[in-house]
Amino acid sequence: MSLSIRNQIPGTVTSVTRGEAMATVRARLTGGQEITAAITLEAVRELGLAEGRAVRTLIKSTEVALATGPVEGISIRNQLAGTVSDIATGGAMAAVKVTVGGGELTAAITKDAVEDLGLAVGSQVVALVKSTEVSLAAD
Amino acid sequence: MSLSIRNQIPGTVTSVTRGEAMATVRARLTGGQEITAAITLEAVRELGLAEGRAVRTLIKSTEVALATGPVEGISIRNQLAGTVSDIATGGAMAAVKVTVGGGELTAAITKDAVEDLGLAVGSQVVALVKSTEVSLAAD
Amino acid sequence: MSLSIRNQIPGTVTSVTRGEAMATVRARLTGGQEITAAITLEAVRELGLAEGRAVRTLIKSTEVALATGPVEGISIRNQLAGTVSDIATGGAMAAVKVTVGGGELTAAITKDAVEDLGLAVGSQVVALVKSTEVSLAAD
Repeated sequence: MSLSIRNQIPGTVTSVTRGEAMATVRARLTGGQEITAAITLEAVRELGLAEGRAVRTLIKSTEVALATGPVEGISIRNQLAGTVSDIATGGAMAAVKVTVGGGELTAAITKDAVEDLGLAVGSQVVALVKSTEVSLAAD
Repeated sequence: MSLSIRNQIPGTVTSVTRGEAMATVRARLTGGQEITAAITLEAVRELGLAEGRAVRTLIKSTEVALATGPVEGISIRNQLAGTVSDIATGGAMAAVKVTVGGGELTAAITKDAVEDLGLAVGSQVVALVKSTEVSLAAD
Repeated sequence: MSLSIRNQIPGTVTSVTRGEAMATVRARLTGGQEITAAITLEAVRELGLAEGRAVRTLIKSTEVALATGPVEGISIRNQLAGTVSDIATGGAMAAVKVTVGGGELTAAITKDAVEDLGLAVGSQVVALVKSTEVSLAAD
């Protein structure tokens, strides 16, 4: 099966926090970073997610924001440092590829944002992803 | 492979509109509804998406909003009418299951929204999903 | 009709930038802030969006992140300053209400984020929303 979801980074579950409807799952990526995913409690059950479980974290390109450095004092749990490797620009949007530890991320952001941040191939950036935007796949 | 993404509805691609960075793909679901997905152009290429291609539309629960009836004059392209079949409520969030033509959707919305809309099992609702939140899988 | 989308702030379109598949629409909110929405070109056409058009910006709670101050050098276009007015905490998630100029926003973020940021009623925050997460309604 092929997925349109550009960003698939393998990792291992390190903790599961269960609410009544939702759960937060933390995973350590192969590059060493930690990722938090907020998913339904039902998904945790059906995928049998528990500490030690191998997973892939799935993140749609439109859910990835970029910053020119680490951001402090922000609710966004996931921040992955990397380097811009490619930029494809359209009339309104741009697709920016970022090489991070353990893989590559694509961020679909506005053309304006690319210009305002002065992004180019080689730029150091931090990819930001809200926990509610991270899905998990268990093989 | 198992996915945490609760909402996976099969369909067939009816059109692909290509931009420089992004593309919009329309698909007809087995229930007869049309879905629009805004995905990267690269994903269209790698999945070989074209008219007639069988796909599954993937929508994370946190991306599904609910309305008590059809909504006019809104940029949200995807509206699927259905009936609430289950509600699990937590301290902040709720997971609401909706039976639609061709499958079942889970919506993760705030507890406040469930109360304000007076949702209960049997309620008629319309599930709303922004095109940028729809991913596609090609088998 | 009622919508589960918690965040609906009225405004007026100030510009429309068209790509081949997607478009970015800027609107000035009644509180004076500017909001950018990345929506499909088709939605722009069907809603007849153009400068001067009255719209409501719709933002699902799960798409709102919070920061303890303005964030520079970030691709996220939309930053609305406000004050926390309420926090409802569940086992994994929290719903945080923020009063901003021209209305109120709800942010569904992880319980961990609320604790790490030390959020309480009265906290000054900046709500962050990626353009691809903003929908528009035209009355």
